Amino acid sequence: MKQRLLILADGSLGVFNSKTATCLIRYRPDEVVAVMDRDHAGQTTDEVLGVPAAVPIVASLEEGLKYAPDTLVIGIAPAGGALPAPWREWIRAALEAGLSVYSGLHVFLGDDTELAAIAAAHGVEIWDLRRPPIEQPIAHGDSRGTRARRVLTVGTDCNIGKMVAAVELAAAGKRRGMDARFLATGQTGMLISGGGVTLDRIPGDFMAGFVERLVLEHAQADLAVVEGQGCLLHPAFSGVTLALMHGALPDAMILVHHAARSIMRAQSLPIPPLAEWVRRYEDAVAPLHPGRVVGIAINPYGLSEADAQAAIAAAEKETGLPAVDVVRQGADRLLDAVLIAR
Amino acid sequence: MKQRLLILADGSLGVFNSKTATCLIRYRPDEVVAVMDRDHAGQTTDEVLGVPAAVPIVASLEEGLKYAPDTLVIGIAPAGGALPAPWREWIRAALEAGLSVYSGLHVFLGDDTELAAIAAAHGVEIWDLRRPPIEQPIAHGDSRGTRARRVLTVGTDCNIGKMVAAVELAAAGKRRGMDARFLATGQTGMLISGGGVTLDRIPGDFMAGFVERLVLEHAQADLAVVEGQGCLLHPAFSGVTLALMHGALPDAMILVHHAARSIMRAQSLPIPPLAEWVRRYEDAVAPLHPGRVVGIAINPYGLSEADAQAAIAAAEKETGLPAVDVVRQGADRLLDAVLIAR
Repeated sequence: MKQRLLILADGSLGVFNSKTATCLIRYRPDEVVAVMDRDHAGQTTDEVLGVPAAVPIVASLEEGLKYAPDTLVIGIAPAGGALPAPWREWIRAALEAGLSVYSGLHVFLGDDTELAAIAAAHGVEIWDLRRPPIEQPIAHGDSRGTRARRVLTVGTDCNIGKMVAAVELAAAGKRRGMDARFLATGQTGMLISGGGVTLDRIPGDFMAGFVERLVLEHAQADLAVVEGQGCLLHPAFSGVTLALMHGALPDAMILVHHAARSIMRAQSLPIPPLAEWVRRYEDAVAPLHPGRVVGIAINPYGLSEADAQAAIAAAEKETGLPAVDVVRQGADRLLDAVLIAR
Repeated sequence: MKQRLLILADGSLGVFNSKTATCLIRYRPDEVVAVMDRDHAGQTTDEVLGVPAAVPIVASLEEGLKYAPDTLVIGIAPAGGALPAPWREWIRAALEAGLSVYSGLHVFLGDDTELAAIAAAHGVEIWDLRRPPIEQPIAHGDSRGTRARRVLTVGTDCNIGKMVAAVELAAAGKRRGMDARFLATGQTGMLISGGGVTLDRIPGDFMAGFVERLVLEHAQADLAVVEGQGCLLHPAFSGVTLALMHGALPDAMILVHHAARSIMRAQSLPIPPLAEWVRRYEDAVAPLHPGRVVGIAINPYGLSEADAQAAIAAAEKETGLPAVDVVRQGADRLLDAVLIAR
């Protein structure tokens, strides 16, 4: 059933972290009715985000309600996940107007007594995407046994395009008639696919277990493309990355790289060469399963067309692997590489 | 202040996972008044566990209460952490007898309405060691800046002696007059030291952040020895291990190996050679901090004295690093290696 989504993205459009808004508009284009961002009100998302859909940007919640949304989606994910103070009033107003609220924040809106009471009174839902399930599964390496070919996207930093690469790879498989699934492991991916698990909210002992369970749910597909998280060298999130690798035990990995970035965000580490990342990702999983990096997804954000093409050519030369910009070129060449990998 | 601990270890004594009982008796010898285990009632822990303290083993809770304990410690940690059904009655009886209860189970006893009410009525405490703190710290690599020399114990498998090696290394430092601290990251370590964090219960995004915060609390010590968790090749727990490494950014690592074990527990993976582990652990942290593996702690469980000595000699020959059994020989040679490492 189609929804009518109003995305709350105040202050975040047009910057690199407007991931939720950009991805929902790109992958659920018929369902986003408006975006609220006071900084860009009056423009369209086509102009501001460069995605091919002319969704209006409004300056207030009241204005957004004129587009008859049924759901408010919280469209930011700040480090640490806390709720910016002014947003609380908008969420309250949305619930009172009869909208459900979907949130990927670390703070659970459903645990806010006042907000929960308003939602109950209006018969609408608060969906906290990051709320961990109560189960406590332990990984046993069972992902190895799937009929589905398992693919994981990995990266040279955080917030770099691993989800988009996974969505596009699954889409390429579907276009060829395969039963290809996108397995979401983050809140934006869950908003796109309607399922999955928000891995970063799971207690450490069970992270790999939840990934394994998610993979086994799709064991009979042709292709299970798992959304990557974090990066093996990011001091805060590397543990999530490794748990994901050992939970999924991929047959093939796609290395995602933001070509314009030379220093890892949130620290001063220069990004190592692509070939070193290929070695590092393969080595981290090798004794458990011989998963190989089979292709490179170049994120061209911030580069001219010519520079993006040069970055793609350089990545191919350095690694000997196919490299593409999955958004502009599609993921077909990466899919070809995946299909000969096992 | 000294406590009077009654350890509930029913059915777990004399098997390899009686870790909590063994470690509390070894490291808080004056405070354990009795252990309950129907299988070994009438013997002493000296006979059953081989630790040099003659703590009585009793067959029932009632009998344990005769030793005037003030605290019941739940002395098992089953995979997944669920509470075995019969234990609930004993916990209830202990609370009703005025004992506090310390639990490292994944299931939180304090969330059990009935048990919480009994504790409140008797003015005693339920301490769920694994309950995650509410803060949400993100790691930034700041551990690098400590005055304290940072050491982390790492292993060739789970449940192998990483905590004991860390406790013994800190004790060796104290004996030389250093301000040497043991930083606990698991529930048994917390029971020994009275502080720390149960890392495996922390959501993925904040694991490294909590480790970093713990390390920074001890930044001005001479030596901060961090208790390791899991193992880089265990499919379920590797993410916890890497988060710990990147949160602590150790100057030196001690590799702990159970010499009698050739296959990793809970999976069929043969344990790689020690030299391969040294390479793997150093490689996983190298771009962030040049931490080195400087010594090997051999866990001789299940070996004869002669075989243990042979395993120690073989480890030294293979790696070129000092190897010791920290329980029988002390950790002085490992401390020497740590002190020249930075």
